[in-house]
Amino acid sequence: MRLETLTIVGVGLIGGSIGMAARRRGLARRVVGVGWRQSTLNLAQDLGAIDAGFLQLRPAVADSDMVVFCTPVQMIAAQILEAAPFCRTGALLTDAGSTKSSIIEQVENKLPPSVRYVGSHPLAGSEKRGPEYADPLLFEDRVTVITPTPSSNSDAVNRIETFWRALGSRVHRMTPDEHDRALALTSHMPHLIAAALAGLLPPELRDLTASGFRDLTRIAAGDPGLWAGILTQNREAVGEALNRLLQQIDRFRAALAGSDENAVTTLLEQGKKVRDALGD
Amino acid sequence: MRLETLTIVGVGLIGGSIGMAARRRGLARRVVGVGWRQSTLNLAQDLGAIDAGFLQLRPAVADSDMVVFCTPVQMIAAQILEAAPFCRTGALLTDAGSTKSSIIEQVENKLPPSVRYVGSHPLAGSEKRGPEYADPLLFEDRVTVITPTPSSNSDAVNRIETFWRALGSRVHRMTPDEHDRALALTSHMPHLIAAALAGLLPPELRDLTASGFRDLTRIAAGDPGLWAGILTQNREAVGEALNRLLQQIDRFRAALAGSDENAVTTLLEQGKKVRDALGD
Repeated sequence: MRLETLTIVGVGLIGGSIGMAARRRGLARRVVGVGWRQSTLNLAQDLGAIDAGFLQLRPAVADSDMVVFCTPVQMIAAQILEAAPFCRTGALLTDAGSTKSSIIEQVENKLPPSVRYVGSHPLAGSEKRGPEYADPLLFEDRVTVITPTPSSNSDAVNRIETFWRALGSRVHRMTPDEHDRALALTSHMPHLIAAALAGLLPPELRDLTASGFRDLTRIAAGDPGLWAGILTQNREAVGEALNRLLQQIDRFRAALAGSDENAVTTLLEQGKKVRDALGD
Repeated sequence: MRLETLTIVGVGLIGGSIGMAARRRGLARRVVGVGWRQSTLNLAQDLGAIDAGFLQLRPAVADSDMVVFCTPVQMIAAQILEAAPFCRTGALLTDAGSTKSSIIEQVENKLPPSVRYVGSHPLAGSEKRGPEYADPLLFEDRVTVITPTPSSNSDAVNRIETFWRALGSRVHRMTPDEHDRALALTSHMPHLIAAALAGLLPPELRDLTASGFRDLTRIAAGDPGLWAGILTQNREAVGEALNRLLQQIDRFRAALAGSDENAVTTLLEQGKKVRDALGD
């Protein structure tokens, strides 16, 4: 795969990492970034994430054969619809949003036939934000989920898959709904739990936390606005995942209420078995 | 502080670290370990955690001026009661158990007047087990809670405090009940949540976890039997901490049910503020 111009909308941790990886791997002759602050664009350029920066979508996408939207999920659909009419014929559009159904419902059947869109979600990142945390190796051996629909162009789907593989990622194909249910359980609901747990801690107990509490709440340091968008867009699946967690908590409560140490051990063993299989 | 003989019952991660720190800092002329397997004692000795190992309590405590019990919480009280009659007059006894009320209730007023016991809990460790994970710097700048009661000898309390400070720890004094309520919130209930969350993950979704899920569930790899003892002994306070978490989860559910992104943001901000204050 060799692109002429790759445009990245939102040059933060994810967008910046895509730019760095694409430039390092010679995936595009030119990488262009779009941002809301000139200072962020300058920083992304200084860090080698982009060749040039734009404050507006229109000039940034005009010459592009591929555009990747790496902005908060609340903004992605509107930006795709705004940019599409200015993209050249055959341009490939994707995004890096953590939710898929909501974005895809908002754009599908509303795009000009000259462009092709397929949703993506690279499972990478951290609680940090900004191009200063971008990393050209961020996608190495990480999973990216792409979510074609029955109306997706199969050539476009293959090219999107090739793009993420070229950045070092493994690619899974799922329906938008499968993606959202899975990520509710592996990412969105756990984020809510981390935030709920952190929010409970009174200041006088800060000194009584150890590495366990810090690990469990680390992602609660993530950007609230960004995650509020994710949780709200995927609220149904998040609600179902929460119900499953509450059922599991109830099993612990029942075992503890009966001082049934064996039953508690069995529940803890179930968690340990899964966690051990994940590795570090 | 300079001890003649320090005895450590249970030479795993915590006990081994105490031995290494005590030897490195010249805190005791001789450090003796008690274990259930000769191979573990040999390993602890090879690693420099103890000078000599015993498979039985009686000979290991006979010459000791201080004994620290670093075994699972279910065993500590019985071991203290078993060892006490064989300890010399004036011997100082403490433990490193993660629960305090249950242990203290089981031993207080049942010890011979010749020995003095004060409960301790160093807030250090990880999901790992065994002397191979011991670290002489484990207690550096970590908090150890000591839990004197109205019947504690004040000289013994001061010496226990001096002991933990000599290992590099900061020391907080709390009542056993205050300790158990605080740790239910900062450690025991979070452990239950990590295990519940890990236990939910079906094998086919393992590949769809990223660093957030791994961080949140890391401690679920801890020893199930050890943690079943902690959760069962402290079940009342753990239940209260769970109720507080469920209330916070309900606030998220209400905000999500109304698609109230601002309310979700506010709840996430509450968590972020606390987490940011904790540092890495």
